[in-house]
Amino acid sequence: MNVGSKKANETIAIMNELVLPNDTNVFGNLMGGRLMYWMDIAAGITAGKHCNAPSVTASVDNLSFKNPIKLGNVVHIESKVTRAFNTSMEIHIKVWGEDLIAQYKYESNEAYFTFVALDPNGNPRAVPSLIPESDEEKKLYDGALRRRQLRLILAGKMKPNDANELKNLFVN
Amino acid sequence: MNVGSKKANETIAIMNELVLPNDTNVFGNLMGGRLMYWMDIAAGITAGKHCNAPSVTASVDNLSFKNPIKLGNVVHIESKVTRAFNTSMEIHIKVWGEDLIAQYKYESNEAYFTFVALDPNGNPRAVPSLIPESDEEKKLYDGALRRRQLRLILAGKMKPNDANELKNLFVN
Amino acid sequence: MNVGSKKANETIAIMNELVLPNDTNVFGNLMGGRLMYWMDIAAGITAGKHCNAPSVTASVDNLSFKNPIKLGNVVHIESKVTRAFNTSMEIHIKVWGEDLIAQYKYESNEAYFTFVALDPNGNPRAVPSLIPESDEEKKLYDGALRRRQLRLILAGKMKPNDANELKNLFVN
Amino acid sequence: MNVGSKKANETIAIMNELVLPNDTNVFGNLMGGRLMYWMDIAAGITAGKHCNAPSVTASVDNLSFKNPIKLGNVVHIESKVTRAFNTSMEIHIKVWGEDLIAQYKYESNEAYFTFVALDPNGNPRAVPSLIPESDEEKKLYDGALRRRQLRLILAGKMKPNDANELKNLFVN
Amino acid sequence: MNVGSKKANETIAIMNELVLPNDTNVFGNLMGGRLMYWMDIAAGITAGKHCNAPSVTASVDNLSFKNPIKLGNVVHIESKVTRAFNTSMEIHIKVWGEDLIAQYKYESNEAYFTFVALDPNGNPRAVPSLIPESDEEKKLYDGALRRRQLRLILAGKMKPNDANELKNLFVN
Amino acid sequence: MNVGSKKANETIAIMNELVLPNDTNVFGNLMGGRLMYWMDIAAGITAGKHCNAPSVTASVDNLSFKNPIKLGNVVHIESKVTRAFNTSMEIHIKVWGEDLIAQYKYESNEAYFTFVALDPNGNPRAVPSLIPESDEEKKLYDGALRRRQLRLILAGKMKPNDANELKNLFVN
Repeated sequence: MNVGSKKANETIAIMNELVLPNDTNVFGNLMGGRLMYWMDIAAGITAGKHCNAPSVTASVDNLSFKNPIKLGNVVHIESKVTRAFNTSMEIHIKVWGEDLIAQYKYESNEAYFTFVALDPNGNPRAVPSLIPESDEEKKLYDGALRRRQLRLILAGKMKPNDANELKNLFVN
Repeated sequence: MNVGSKKANETIAIMNELVLPNDTNVFGNLMGGRLMYWMDIAAGITAGKHCNAPSVTASVDNLSFKNPIKLGNVVHIESKVTRAFNTSMEIHIKVWGEDLIAQYKYESNEAYFTFVALDPNGNPRAVPSLIPESDEEKKLYDGALRRRQLRLILAGKMKPNDANELKNLFVN
Repeated sequence: MNVGSKKANETIAIMNELVLPNDTNVFGNLMGGRLMYWMDIAAGITAGKHCNAPSVTASVDNLSFKNPIKLGNVVHIESKVTRAFNTSMEIHIKVWGEDLIAQYKYESNEAYFTFVALDPNGNPRAVPSLIPESDEEKKLYDGALRRRQLRLILAGKMKPNDANELKNLFVN
Repeated sequence: MNVGSKKANETIAIMNELVLPNDTNVFGNLMGGRLMYWMDIAAGITAGKHCNAPSVTASVDNLSFKNPIKLGNVVHIESKVTRAFNTSMEIHIKVWGEDLIAQYKYESNEAYFTFVALDPNGNPRAVPSLIPESDEEKKLYDGALRRRQLRLILAGKMKPNDANELKNLFVN
Repeated sequence: MNVGSKKANETIAIMNELVLPNDTNVFGNLMGGRLMYWMDIAAGITAGKHCNAPSVTASVDNLSFKNPIKLGNVVHIESKVTRAFNTSMEIHIKVWGEDLIAQYKYESNEAYFTFVALDPNGNPRAVPSLIPESDEEKKLYDGALRRRQLRLILAGKMKPNDANELKNLFVN
Repeated sequence: MNVGSKKANETIAIMNELVLPNDTNVFGNLMGGRLMYWMDIAAGITAGKHCNAPSVTASVDNLSFKNPIKLGNVVHIESKVTRAFNTSMEIHIKVWGEDLIAQYKYESNEAYFTFVALDPNGNPRAVPSLIPESDEEKKLYDGALRRRQLRLILAGKMKPNDANELKNLFVN
């Protein structure tokens, strides 16, 4: 079935949240788990914009926390599909913190989520392909294959020797 | 500063939760983001048991969702330190779902979280080393170095050629 | 004290949320109170972007619900300062629902919130003036005076005869 | 269909809540959005008591915050139908804060919510008329018509010249 | 220190809540734990009205669930001090469910909570004595001594033979 | 119907939670109502493990709070069936607080919950009998009958003179 294609910027979801007391750890910073909860919702909206079908989280990679976001600061989340495979979409999410009083905005973290589209029986279904346009989108598109091989190796579903894209990193 | 050592099984945290309506997606299954929220709390307790100091989430890798957990089922989470580095701890988390009425327990997902211990100024501080005892603990301990190199490469903090542990996967 | 000025589009806040089961009434639609909770947070972020100071909700007017937002749909909220007075800002908020599967986006509601900027003692403090640029921003800017007179009359702080802007609606 | 009538005091709903840390802003006061969430639930209970049918929020007017309610204080909410129209009910809500330790009770805010009763198909249905008894109830009953004209004008559903009740405010 | 006295009806707290999806178990009824959470808040407000000091839950007895409260129904909670001892207050809480559409109100459960008043160092402090007025208040007042002896025996702080009030139940 | 039997240790549920800001009272300690909410979920999991059927809270007794659990501390909950009657199970729950930084674990409270198993029509259904093994389990098993008589007397379903087990406490 041909399910067409979407441009990367048709899949953008933007979310702003405020860090409230219950969202913080003993340092008064946003807890990692709360942020992941919001990132998952943003990624789910992006996946829905891309495939117009119900979809569920399949994996999360390389979520790394650079700067903590303080109590009372704004959390700014942006997510976008980087590449679509058969029935799955890799989604790139960037998170910034913003202190509106100090007028200071800072990178907080970044991650790749993979979502799978499902049909009404809960089986994977085909998704549109992704058309990257900007330079950054093209770079994310190219890296997606390498990241996917890494996920398959780590899940024991691919042998390192078959991961050509990834192998080049080490062998050359 | 010598901060001693801990055995892997001194760091275990166990958590049971019930999947309530608000935790579910349109398929009536536990949302990925809600599960990550709980996993982060379990990992935080494990980190605290290991280092007896405040600690924060530094990264999450290879979280991959195998089986969805149904509304009304029990979520069973177990977390344990796999290896301690200078100021960080890699924590392995396993998640099962359990349908108590059908008496059926199933693997749901698995992930590695990295936590960093902090001193009162918010700077990283040394943590005890980890002593693996069982075969499974030793295997997780050995793999931790390879996973760490992977994280450093992906974060742009290490060159692939310097990742000896990881390189062996591809070059042999 | 001259506190400068801001352009309307420097104050925009965008928020996307997913309607979860706990957010719904017996018809399976988003509850009014939950939506107001999110609108208040969006308005607070917009107020912070405008005045770069802590600010609090002073009043809410003319919040009228046109179309209910369904369970599982996306809530899209946009807020923007329409006009700044001495120490207060009128904020216009628009809300859309979006059914990503049916690819259908619909207006849900609209409201005006007023926020007051506070100094560290909790007293009102001067805010930058607002510069409207687009036609829609200019129209909202002009109407703000009339809406403000209405609020003052309804709060018993202005006599109807002194509300010149508003009076013209009825007398001509 | 004649759906009878109800006395104003048969529609009273009373709610007491405690201000918890997560309900507060940076000043340690109850956030406006959290209070609106509770007011909407109180109004919904009052609407249900009046019409004994499912009903939904149609609009909110003139919600104005006089005094902030402090962390740890009690929120006291009282709501009552002021007047019923064909298929809608105007509900008046008053909110007090109470500091039990200081034995000090203070007015916090006040608002008018409008709810519409719905039949099982989601269409508006007739509601009982309201019988005001006390002087305050009669005053609220009389003002309801004026507030309704104002809502219709602001929603663009009535021309100012047709709003006789309201016009008198300005023209005399 | 003489801390005066309060009448039973000066300590009443009333709370109305709506049963939302997240509050329910697999039968669509209000979960016991959620109800206990609300009862504890109501009891805390009643304790505060009685002693005008911070106070904390010391024990809960004989909470027995008669009728489940359905999703969408109203929870009506009333709490009142039955008797004050030196530094503690026994509080009686009654809970009804109400189906506004079916116009049907039913008893759901009942319990006794004991709260202890604390001074700023966290030590117990004297509370006013309680004056029961109605017949029901007097009956609750009389039974309080017996219930207190039972609590002390069960906590291993009193010998059965010293519990005169309670002993009479069995020996006569 | 013979529904077999279960050993006490097959019914254990373990839960770890972190005390977050929203869970605390004005002293910065875990609120009683929040803890009861978690205890009810732990007890529900234990009941499910015992009877493999849906079950609901029937009563709570003798919940007494010894030590408050501090913000940031870990809540450790363990629950186990003590004895099964015809269609009900008595469940014993113990709660500890743990300060991971100070390496200090302390008893917080203890309670007995009774759950009833239900068939799909919502009527009580037979549950397996319980086999106590350790000395502590046997002691809890023996005391269960006495506690049950007490509950029945307090609920007005048994006359004190018929409560032989309990009577012995006072008459000898």
